[in-house]
Amino acid sequence: MPHPTVPATLEGWSVLHQMFRLDWPAWLAAAGDARQAAAEEAVACLQALKASNDGHTAAAALLGHKGDLMLLHCRRSLESLLEVQLTVARLQLARFLVATTSYVSVVELGMYEMTAKLHEQLTARGLEPESPEYDQAFAAEMAEQQPRVASRLMPELPRRRYVCFYPMSKRRGEHKNWYATPFTRRAMMMREHGAIGRRYAGQVVQIISGSIGFDDWEWGVDLFADDPLVFKRLVYEMRFDEASADYGEFGAFYVGLQFAPEELSAFLDGRVPGL
Amino acid sequence: MPHPTVPATLEGWSVLHQMFRLDWPAWLAAAGDARQAAAEEAVACLQALKASNDGHTAAAALLGHKGDLMLLHCRRSLESLLEVQLTVARLQLARFLVATTSYVSVVELGMYEMTAKLHEQLTARGLEPESPEYDQAFAAEMAEQQPRVASRLMPELPRRRYVCFYPMSKRRGEHKNWYATPFTRRAMMMREHGAIGRRYAGQVVQIISGSIGFDDWEWGVDLFADDPLVFKRLVYEMRFDEASADYGEFGAFYVGLQFAPEELSAFLDGRVPGL
Amino acid sequence: MPHPTVPATLEGWSVLHQMFRLDWPAWLAAAGDARQAAAEEAVACLQALKASNDGHTAAAALLGHKGDLMLLHCRRSLESLLEVQLTVARLQLARFLVATTSYVSVVELGMYEMTAKLHEQLTARGLEPESPEYDQAFAAEMAEQQPRVASRLMPELPRRRYVCFYPMSKRRGEHKNWYATPFTRRAMMMREHGAIGRRYAGQVVQIISGSIGFDDWEWGVDLFADDPLVFKRLVYEMRFDEASADYGEFGAFYVGLQFAPEELSAFLDGRVPGL
Amino acid sequence: MPHPTVPATLEGWSVLHQMFRLDWPAWLAAAGDARQAAAEEAVACLQALKASNDGHTAAAALLGHKGDLMLLHCRRSLESLLEVQLTVARLQLARFLVATTSYVSVVELGMYEMTAKLHEQLTARGLEPESPEYDQAFAAEMAEQQPRVASRLMPELPRRRYVCFYPMSKRRGEHKNWYATPFTRRAMMMREHGAIGRRYAGQVVQIISGSIGFDDWEWGVDLFADDPLVFKRLVYEMRFDEASADYGEFGAFYVGLQFAPEELSAFLDGRVPGL
Amino acid sequence: MPHPTVPATLEGWSVLHQMFRLDWPAWLAAAGDARQAAAEEAVACLQALKASNDGHTAAAALLGHKGDLMLLHCRRSLESLLEVQLTVARLQLARFLVATTSYVSVVELGMYEMTAKLHEQLTARGLEPESPEYDQAFAAEMAEQQPRVASRLMPELPRRRYVCFYPMSKRRGEHKNWYATPFTRRAMMMREHGAIGRRYAGQVVQIISGSIGFDDWEWGVDLFADDPLVFKRLVYEMRFDEASADYGEFGAFYVGLQFAPEELSAFLDGRVPGL
Repeated sequence: MPHPTVPATLEGWSVLHQMFRLDWPAWLAAAGDARQAAAEEAVACLQALKASNDGHTAAAALLGHKGDLMLLHCRRSLESLLEVQLTVARLQLARFLVATTSYVSVVELGMYEMTAKLHEQLTARGLEPESPEYDQAFAAEMAEQQPRVASRLMPELPRRRYVCFYPMSKRRGEHKNWYATPFTRRAMMMREHGAIGRRYAGQVVQIISGSIGFDDWEWGVDLFADDPLVFKRLVYEMRFDEASADYGEFGAFYVGLQFAPEELSAFLDGRVPGL
Repeated sequence: MPHPTVPATLEGWSVLHQMFRLDWPAWLAAAGDARQAAAEEAVACLQALKASNDGHTAAAALLGHKGDLMLLHCRRSLESLLEVQLTVARLQLARFLVATTSYVSVVELGMYEMTAKLHEQLTARGLEPESPEYDQAFAAEMAEQQPRVASRLMPELPRRRYVCFYPMSKRRGEHKNWYATPFTRRAMMMREHGAIGRRYAGQVVQIISGSIGFDDWEWGVDLFADDPLVFKRLVYEMRFDEASADYGEFGAFYVGLQFAPEELSAFLDGRVPGL
Repeated sequence: MPHPTVPATLEGWSVLHQMFRLDWPAWLAAAGDARQAAAEEAVACLQALKASNDGHTAAAALLGHKGDLMLLHCRRSLESLLEVQLTVARLQLARFLVATTSYVSVVELGMYEMTAKLHEQLTARGLEPESPEYDQAFAAEMAEQQPRVASRLMPELPRRRYVCFYPMSKRRGEHKNWYATPFTRRAMMMREHGAIGRRYAGQVVQIISGSIGFDDWEWGVDLFADDPLVFKRLVYEMRFDEASADYGEFGAFYVGLQFAPEELSAFLDGRVPGL
Repeated sequence: MPHPTVPATLEGWSVLHQMFRLDWPAWLAAAGDARQAAAEEAVACLQALKASNDGHTAAAALLGHKGDLMLLHCRRSLESLLEVQLTVARLQLARFLVATTSYVSVVELGMYEMTAKLHEQLTARGLEPESPEYDQAFAAEMAEQQPRVASRLMPELPRRRYVCFYPMSKRRGEHKNWYATPFTRRAMMMREHGAIGRRYAGQVVQIISGSIGFDDWEWGVDLFADDPLVFKRLVYEMRFDEASADYGEFGAFYVGLQFAPEELSAFLDGRVPGL
Repeated sequence: MPHPTVPATLEGWSVLHQMFRLDWPAWLAAAGDARQAAAEEAVACLQALKASNDGHTAAAALLGHKGDLMLLHCRRSLESLLEVQLTVARLQLARFLVATTSYVSVVELGMYEMTAKLHEQLTARGLEPESPEYDQAFAAEMAEQQPRVASRLMPELPRRRYVCFYPMSKRRGEHKNWYATPFTRRAMMMREHGAIGRRYAGQVVQIISGSIGFDDWEWGVDLFADDPLVFKRLVYEMRFDEASADYGEFGAFYVGLQFAPEELSAFLDGRVPGL
């Protein structure tokens, strides 16, 4: 029985990361009441976005020059994300924000083991891979999985102090090529990779979102922890597993402190915002 | 009989993608009547461009910082595209638009199988490849194909909610080199690649345009669908086929929501524009 | 008899490509008489530059965001090019132009076959390669060639509607390295490469300029044609020859419509300028 | 006994490098009293940051266009670094500063030898690698090391005239891959690498900080010396050791002159600031 | 006797290249007397910098968009370079200059043959490589060389019309790695490389400066000639020698016309400045 090639995925929240630089000199030069009005409007906006029926929004103060502020929006659809994007763009505060980068993705669970299991069952039932019958039966089985993992597909955003975001892809080199590697070997590497993550389970919450077809890398990774050194240790340890050592390619890293919507005012006043 | 090297292509619309960031703060700071005049002029322009005898234009609201607005223009010639480009550049709205990128290409059908068939016929007639007689006979045969595939060369732009655009090239690595791969092998890989596309036929409409000699990548790909997850699944599945896994190189991905010309006003007012 | 390594070249015009974005909003916002004065001065300048005793200048309207305007200046010396550059920089129109890129090079004929022939003759005369006598005799022979190919070294710029420019280099990879490939093999590949060009002779005029030591790529290529699809077909077909498939590296492509100096006014008024 | 894969690390100061360009024309155009007030405030700020209970700050005047000013902040936590970042952003001087780049990291000691030793002891005690018991025992042993190397984890910043900063990563190539190299071999290479550093001990002070999970490269390197040629010699010599020759990848290099907080005034007046 | 690994170097001038774009529209819009004052101050500054006891400064008008003006400063120390940098930054003319790039380096002579010779002598005296005694004896011998090559370490800047600057590094590829190549082989390649240079001795003056630890590439190369085609021929011919073909990596190329300090006025008036 030939193995399948493409692991099935389940998708949840549509996700938009927005990184902004705050033009501090312009902000500080603005009139006091204009600043107060802009801050109050922005706080109210963040509170509404966070408490939305349609998803969640988190905010973080970033370290370094790649941005001062990161907004992480999870919504039920790209349409809702566009609505959020338009809302933020029209804030009075937006006059002082410069978008430095962004990331569009969808929360994703990669299902290597489930794919292998379903494949075995369906071919045992005599279904031909890539036939409409096979595809339909496969989709039906996957749809059944969806509720079982709903809380992982549409998670709440963890209320942990430190946040780390980075995009990544699997290497398609001339010699080391993830997409030309057999399914079973990839499944094995992903299992090993996942085992490291599980050893850090209490210390870090990880949200993986897929962005193939949506943005320039293949996946986005968000990590949430109470101790930022956990980011360093986890990512360093993973760098030695075969999936990452041989096949991981990483984009820019963003690290910051998550804060509560109402703490945006403190941040805009130059104080470290509380969570 | 030696195989040909270069697959013939048929060409249709000349295509210009324009991506713009909207300077929201400047837009919101503009006087109400200036905004209304600019919006009305831009809507009328989009309507005229869409209904042109000479081609089609579609508009989409993009997600993320790489652009707020994408215009996709199809015309009969580069000259017409230049005319469109000049028209857009002179809109009142253009004062608030910053071009972030663009793409120049020509709708293209790659004809691997037809090339092989014609080659066989012409050499059977005793014509010498690369001789003027062969070239002329080949061109005549291709010209006959043109009307048969006219609707694919000069297609209407699908009225589907979601749009995805990305440029790509075939790898010319030191070991994996598409252009040094035998014709029959490339033809086989393209057939496999096309088969995946056909399985998604109902869910997605794909327009391929060639840009060798016109822009920085070799092809542009536009996908249109009612469900954006289809983009992710299609591109992910294709990433495992040999043509993509070993030879595909991909540029930036742009994803957005197509909207009707008259809905540009809603967008400029900060509302999600309808299709 | 060992073969030489370095093919001789003959050089003609010094060349400067200038790509400019036109700041349309600022241009449109300028007072009518300021625009008229700027346009008239720029037209007169282009006319003078085109009719120069010291060389030629062509202008093209570019498609896409990489520039609105390309000026291609050919002059007898870098000193003359600097003079042109300073003249353009001081135009009233320059207030509305933003230089997006440029390219500095010298029209060049690569002489693989002549080099081999002269090498054979000189070594037959007992001259030692790389000796002063050999170098001097070689230079003298090349100097004799110069008048024979003067019209190709200092060509007039073809009055064809479409223009394509791109820079390129020969790959110096770890495995595929043009500069580590034997002379005879390179000569053979260049001959094959040239043969494709000759098949397109009637349809396209090509000007090659060398930029090693002058700019960031090794050569610049200008193509002129009445049908822009010829650019696509020629460059695509060449991509399969060994010199390009294995050793060609290509920079950005610029495509546009050449226009007559006096048509700059039409362009600045938002109309497609005539040739 | 299988060797471990991941070398343990000990972490100290959280570190933020900030590189700024000074907008000299704007600065010189500002009113004299505004400049004096801004300079005095900035000097006082640097003095307070340098004398902080919570860490150290150093300032340097950079050579070249990549920045005029580098601030190097060491603090006990990312939270403190954010506080510093906000303080600097709100200086009056910040109106004239443009952040060109930055770097976020944590002072780190890589413990290859200690890791091997502990691994041997713990497995000798019958503990299973990657078991909770092993992890806990290992962490306890490492915690004991912390005070012993506290002065290297939370060093004072050396009062030497010349400073050099650059980020680096270990190569993960398709053939040469640090993370796929056996532990003992990496340990051996790091020992050799360290030996070169020790030969330069009197001439240069080196602070290594890790940034995996925090910033775009894996490590940041700061060098301090009284003679800048030492930077050149040390980095050149190291480039030949196996760890660097085969596995080192280097980012941008920044070189400058460290100066005392109160000397910022001289710098802002256009004079070389003293240490 | 094992060969040494690291070739010794001798160092001379500290070097700063500054490339500036001139904001021509702003310059032309400035009041006549402000321009005259700025030009006179800048000329006087260039004259003083050129005639400095502490080093030399040369100026060149660049071709293309990468810069209008290049200043090349040679000084006895980085401290003096910083002083020069501050002086230029505070010119009235600096309001119209935008730094596009820069390069920090130190004039360097690589001493492959001397290193081999000294190594042989010292080991013959029984000194152990990398021992303090060896290092000290080696340094003493090198110090003796310094006066002998002083004029090459602290050269005057040649008064030739054309200038070419580019940075370069030696490749550290996965297969072709300069730093993993045996000393004797590198020495042999450098000898061959130098032989080409010597054949151009009368036509071009070359100044090599090292920038490992100082800037982003490993070396900077300045060429001075009366005929700019010499740059093209020399760099092209060298590209075929093994050191360059297999191991050379090149950054951006800058080419321009050197001019005398007092000719800056002509340049600012839009005329080609004389030497």
